[in-house]
Amino acid sequence: MSTALETALAYHEAWKSRDLDRAMSYIADDIVCDAPAGRLEGADAYRGFLTPFVGMLRSATMLAAFGDDDRALVMYDAETVPVPSAPGAELVTVREGRIVHSRFLFDRAPFEAARRQG
Amino acid sequence: MSTALETALAYHEAWKSRDLDRAMSYIADDIVCDAPAGRLEGADAYRGFLTPFVGMLRSATMLAAFGDDDRALVMYDAETVPVPSAPGAELVTVREGRIVHSRFLFDRAPFEAARRQG
Repeated sequence: MSTALETALAYHEAWKSRDLDRAMSYIADDIVCDAPAGRLEGADAYRGFLTPFVGMLRSATMLAAFGDDDRALVMYDAETVPVPSAPGAELVTVREGRIVHSRFLFDRAPFEAARRQG
Repeated sequence: MSTALETALAYHEAWKSRDLDRAMSYIADDIVCDAPAGRLEGADAYRGFLTPFVGMLRSATMLAAFGDDDRALVMYDAETVPVPSAPGAELVTVREGRIVHSRFLFDRAPFEAARRQG
């Protein structure tokens, strides 16, 4: 198993367990995350993005996880309070055990629909 | 390189070149595709899904591609007419050189916004 994949899996297990501090221990201070709504820069911005997600998370299941020396690509399904099936995919670049870049992908449409419905 | 990854990459190159027939040559007749809008069953339904996408495609760039013996996971960015950056991720299961299952993920929100704006 590549170190990048080990880090991606440890990060996944942490947020899946709703352990925000442990999840953030795998995030570099200067992380750049390209998410559907735009670019997030820095660990504080990333934590501000992860916190509400973890707050509405019911469970998550890893569907596939692959990696090489410095990158890992994962896809999972997540059950959340507003959206019963909210799959996500993350392509992460890892340096010294921390994620320095993340390309993050999920479908915002059902979250927007849930918000519109109140 | 795994056979599953070879198939996933060949499929990607085909739709990226807007060669719908070649792309469909990598799709099993009984494909099951779990896409954001729901499940598609069978090659005809899949072609009905792929055709409008290829029609609005300007270019695509593979961001990462990994695989093992029977599965491959890819993430790419796609430039389309309505949405300039429309990344996608696909987790495909391959049997005898054809994709029998695809878990397909992209953000529908910017496509819905473009449609609303006419």
